[in-house]
Amino acid sequence: MMHETVLRSATKEVVLGHSRPFCLIGERINPTGRKIFQQQLREGDLSAVERDVAAQVAGGADVLDVNMGVPLTDEADLLARAIRLVQKCTDLPICIDSSVVEALEAGLSVYQGRALVNSVTAEDDRMAAILPLVKKYDAAVIALPNDADEIPMEAERRLELVDHIVSVATKEYGIAVEDIVIDPLAMPIGADTTVVQTTLTTMRGIRDRHGLNMTCGASNVSFGMPDRAAIGAAFLPIAMSAGLTSAIMDTRTPQLVAAVKAADLVLGHDEWGAAWIAAHRARQLAGT
Amino acid sequence: MMHETVLRSATKEVVLGHSRPFCLIGERINPTGRKIFQQQLREGDLSAVERDVAAQVAGGADVLDVNMGVPLTDEADLLARAIRLVQKCTDLPICIDSSVVEALEAGLSVYQGRALVNSVTAEDDRMAAILPLVKKYDAAVIALPNDADEIPMEAERRLELVDHIVSVATKEYGIAVEDIVIDPLAMPIGADTTVVQTTLTTMRGIRDRHGLNMTCGASNVSFGMPDRAAIGAAFLPIAMSAGLTSAIMDTRTPQLVAAVKAADLVLGHDEWGAAWIAAHRARQLAGT
Repeated sequence: MMHETVLRSATKEVVLGHSRPFCLIGERINPTGRKIFQQQLREGDLSAVERDVAAQVAGGADVLDVNMGVPLTDEADLLARAIRLVQKCTDLPICIDSSVVEALEAGLSVYQGRALVNSVTAEDDRMAAILPLVKKYDAAVIALPNDADEIPMEAERRLELVDHIVSVATKEYGIAVEDIVIDPLAMPIGADTTVVQTTLTTMRGIRDRHGLNMTCGASNVSFGMPDRAAIGAAFLPIAMSAGLTSAIMDTRTPQLVAAVKAADLVLGHDEWGAAWIAAHRARQLAGT
Repeated sequence: MMHETVLRSATKEVVLGHSRPFCLIGERINPTGRKIFQQQLREGDLSAVERDVAAQVAGGADVLDVNMGVPLTDEADLLARAIRLVQKCTDLPICIDSSVVEALEAGLSVYQGRALVNSVTAEDDRMAAILPLVKKYDAAVIALPNDADEIPMEAERRLELVDHIVSVATKEYGIAVEDIVIDPLAMPIGADTTVVQTTLTTMRGIRDRHGLNMTCGASNVSFGMPDRAAIGAAFLPIAMSAGLTSAIMDTRTPQLVAAVKAADLVLGHDEWGAAWIAAHRARQLAGT
């Protein structure tokens, strides 16, 4: 059975599923590695958030990942403010992204709709801290198949950890199985060209065993390599055919967005090619 | 067992295989739909052939498809002349492409090396006419799983015809199984978005049951749709992950070539990313 994961803002619903168009989670609303943005956030200036939201929406994002991880700030307060602001700017559902449990809760408490929580691991203490929040706020959650000891380099071990997460989340915390979205851990191909095979094998296993939705950080794969967009534009169609149903990605790169939309067409998730043809006409009208 | 197909010119060897880099068969040396080229060929002017060869080689072709199907000409004579000319221009192996048996034989008789014959079907009379030539000239052959009655629209029927072709070619005509390259029949997605699913299912079946190499006319898929290169650039990586090991394609489209090379990297057919990085450096040096 193939599961569907429902996300909502106050007014808009987005559904992840194996027979649906791929879900683009815009990744840019995140200060990691951006010093000016970090300084602005420390000073309480969230204007860059509005610009980043506008750019990801214009690029075709279906959901927005919002991360406010800035050292030496009250991340919980900042994330709550950012989420309120993003929900004023757009009706897209939000993926609330933090490694800080208090920040996740602050974000969830102000969010209007049904959020995606990014993320939990297979570690018992992380599941104990985060899954009750997912349940309390009726959210969905991204789960990573790694534990405290390791990021497993064998697909079979990742699949065992997925089994563990699904079992614990559903039986101990009452999370609906369709609200678990697995991140099968995409890692840089430049370090070792076999790591992507492990990720793809994991994806096929998750689809075939569990029918769960999946997401991943698509840009990780090309990290450190030249011509990153071209690598991502090949990785995403291949991953989609292995079962990936969404990705956290920068929608400002048209080549990546086109690769996803073309793969939707090729994989039969764009009936009659209606979306492909409509997008082409829109670009013609816009003169781009 | 995964088979490898060896093609050769007088001096160069190209091997198709499931763990090897994808083989790009340049498709442009073909007058179909080109009225000026057809008229030149009727007048014995083959200068466009030289230009087309140069363009396909520059684009990164590994093998060249040569077709001289011009109405109202002696195709056998023309194809033999074209093959001699192409072999003067380049050391790439050739895919000898004709629906006329006499033209295939004329081409094979002058070819220096080990050619790929394009193509035979599952029809008994076509196999009886073409497979003895493949054997006589020690060539490899592209086989299409259709018969006189139909192009089957079910993957299972195509796989039955592949079984039939493999059985007849190996047992009755003594063709080595690794010299059979299957074209799983890529058809236009614009007519019906499910046809590509059939092709992909057929590819996986051929890989898993027979381990044979495959090729297809990659541009067929996007026929009639807008933004054809973007569709091809998503189709090829997906097809490669389903077992496609070569394609007949126009290497003058950089987006298609980049998609193939990136998919080689993602699928683990470019160890250490050496080819990807080398191609990037070459483009930098060329200033493109």
